[in-house]
Amino acid sequence: MLFRFAPEKDCMLDPAADPSGGLIERLDLAPLRKGPLDGLEFTAKDNIDLAGYRTSYGSPAWRDAHPAPVYNALCVDQLLGAGARCVGKVVADEFTYSLDGESFYFGTPRNAKAPDRVPGGSSSGSAASVANGLADFSLCTDAGGSTRFPASLCGLWGMRPSLHRISEAGVLPFQPSVSTVGVLADRFHVLDATMRVLLDSPTSPVPSPRRILVLKDALEIADPSVQDQVTIALDRIAESTGVAVEQVGFSEIVGRQCELKACNLDGLRDLQTAEFQSTVGNWIEACKPDLGATFSMAYGNVQTFDRIAALDNMARCERLFRQINAFFAPETVICFPTTPKIAPLKGSLNTLDAVMDFYDPTMTITAFSGVARLPEISAPLLTVEGCPVGLSFAAGHYQDEFLLSAVRHLAC
Amino acid sequence: MLFRFAPEKDCMLDPAADPSGGLIERLDLAPLRKGPLDGLEFTAKDNIDLAGYRTSYGSPAWRDAHPAPVYNALCVDQLLGAGARCVGKVVADEFTYSLDGESFYFGTPRNAKAPDRVPGGSSSGSAASVANGLADFSLCTDAGGSTRFPASLCGLWGMRPSLHRISEAGVLPFQPSVSTVGVLADRFHVLDATMRVLLDSPTSPVPSPRRILVLKDALEIADPSVQDQVTIALDRIAESTGVAVEQVGFSEIVGRQCELKACNLDGLRDLQTAEFQSTVGNWIEACKPDLGATFSMAYGNVQTFDRIAALDNMARCERLFRQINAFFAPETVICFPTTPKIAPLKGSLNTLDAVMDFYDPTMTITAFSGVARLPEISAPLLTVEGCPVGLSFAAGHYQDEFLLSAVRHLAC
Repeated sequence: MLFRFAPEKDCMLDPAADPSGGLIERLDLAPLRKGPLDGLEFTAKDNIDLAGYRTSYGSPAWRDAHPAPVYNALCVDQLLGAGARCVGKVVADEFTYSLDGESFYFGTPRNAKAPDRVPGGSSSGSAASVANGLADFSLCTDAGGSTRFPASLCGLWGMRPSLHRISEAGVLPFQPSVSTVGVLADRFHVLDATMRVLLDSPTSPVPSPRRILVLKDALEIADPSVQDQVTIALDRIAESTGVAVEQVGFSEIVGRQCELKACNLDGLRDLQTAEFQSTVGNWIEACKPDLGATFSMAYGNVQTFDRIAALDNMARCERLFRQINAFFAPETVICFPTTPKIAPLKGSLNTLDAVMDFYDPTMTITAFSGVARLPEISAPLLTVEGCPVGLSFAAGHYQDEFLLSAVRHLAC
Repeated sequence: MLFRFAPEKDCMLDPAADPSGGLIERLDLAPLRKGPLDGLEFTAKDNIDLAGYRTSYGSPAWRDAHPAPVYNALCVDQLLGAGARCVGKVVADEFTYSLDGESFYFGTPRNAKAPDRVPGGSSSGSAASVANGLADFSLCTDAGGSTRFPASLCGLWGMRPSLHRISEAGVLPFQPSVSTVGVLADRFHVLDATMRVLLDSPTSPVPSPRRILVLKDALEIADPSVQDQVTIALDRIAESTGVAVEQVGFSEIVGRQCELKACNLDGLRDLQTAEFQSTVGNWIEACKPDLGATFSMAYGNVQTFDRIAALDNMARCERLFRQINAFFAPETVICFPTTPKIAPLKGSLNTLDAVMDFYDPTMTITAFSGVARLPEISAPLLTVEGCPVGLSFAAGHYQDEFLLSAVRHLAC
């Protein structure tokens, strides 16, 4: 049976004390030693272990069924060990299986720059805590876009690193072949410093970006007003940096006739569903926990999913990974709007048509870096109808340090 | 309190029905469709989910505390979906945190070629089931050597693929930055076919191996009798294939003065311990389960481990990964004895000195591919004092298909 938790039961802070609407609990985990992140404060998404606090995974049922961890996630210790201070545990969408940012149990964290619109998920509390000034950055996660999407909708810097560059020990298992740790920050230099700590970046020099290739297929999916803003922003970048801006089609990148939506529809979507079955799905089927209405609707598709048919899609993912990465030169970044639209109005994702209209074009774009295991940075460079939209830059797999350096050069 | 489970309680088969001593349960999971593995039978290590059967992780306490999974691990479905049949669930060392192969709870699976010696762990049941003829191959895992080590000691083919090339959905979380799915097989063509299914290998051609570089530092750690056999085997390979064999020092590979043991002592060992704390450690600390005597001894070190000091070792791992992989050309394989010695006698690892004498040189060698995230194949090419020892070949990160092709050329 579904039921809604009374907000007062799960919301530990009164609204006046939490202008972000995204805090689960205010904390004060002091730095473990001095380092490059001295003076910076961060929040942690509630699928990342903090010692002594139960991890909810966005689900009160999961939280109550699992004991509090004894150890922080390793990525948390990396940050505390580099001088940062953890000031809060923040809301995630239920099982992080959503891009909405409207939690059935924990409410909708506030999109500071567009308060009548959703913040995006699943790292909704992370985005809200940073955009509303509670923290300098937030440690979160990304699989289908859970870091990049709220970055775009809330006007923040956000990075999904190369798949498996950052340790996931102590991060709840989700979609092992797709999930990464991510970071949302309000300033580029904070994102840069934080990611370099998490990536254990070597100090060896990286090349300067020589060209920006605009992913034509992603641009065409975006609303015309978003397309216009992308063009204006890239003209400005070309003028100020002298870096060449060209368009590239997805077929050129993979070296054969292929539509961009293949990354999602013929590849990543089924891999993600199959992996979710093997992690959270097993627990749900065994324990029959209470589930929120939004998640229940999505989970219906997981339950009826044809796992065996997905095996062929796994091979397609591997093929796309290789084809896309063979295209990248170390001096090249690929650029596209992080999301095709501005944030939906709160409460508007209430029909199947509305949900499909939202997810299909969005995931067609986010699946590009997902399937190719690329690092991607969403930069808060665009404004459409007064709302933020991100401009994303991606580089080859494991070229995270080049991407950080390139974005500093191009977009700061 | 520690206690020993009565063997009759956990051993579901009488010894006459299981000549390997490694079966937990005989199964018959039919192929889901036809494919390249038609006619092949496999067993699965008991840290890999099989739908409807509790996964023990080598620990009766873990098994009893967790419900049976509803879904197979994705790697199991890949095999069933390619024509293979699963015929058994097999013993793993407790929490897979050992290389011994002497399970406190499930006994010591039989080393078919050296019955008075241990089979090696943690994939002890996997090795025993294949070497004793119960299956063509076994699906298992590797972090510190859990596939490669029993391959070497039992005279089997074994492969640890590049880190994160194979989905770990449905494989119990262990050490996320180090663990891989692995395969043990009795014939090379079975290993090759199985790995290509799991890797979703593209059919694009790979170069032929042009040179074998023998890792001098690993050779020097090995017993003189093992060294002699390596030399004889490589002379034979050079003669029959015409491929050049040269020696290379670890310092040459990483481009600076550095000892091979740095891979383990200054890098991987601490990363593995920190990650194990965040996965199994959290559960043990919260649930205080019964633990076997051997594991308890090892776990004492996990409990007193300085997690923060390990953060610097993570950066060293990243540096070693980059340095080692920068050295690899696509035509190059690096070669070394998989283990420095033959299998220890059963029951001989009963003092701290004996354990250290066993683990230190062994993990100095196995940590090379671990820290560099390399694919490594152990080939059953050496015999010392009548016992098997493996000869390992490694290639660059993500060059799994080249490695398979190279080993076919060199060692078959």
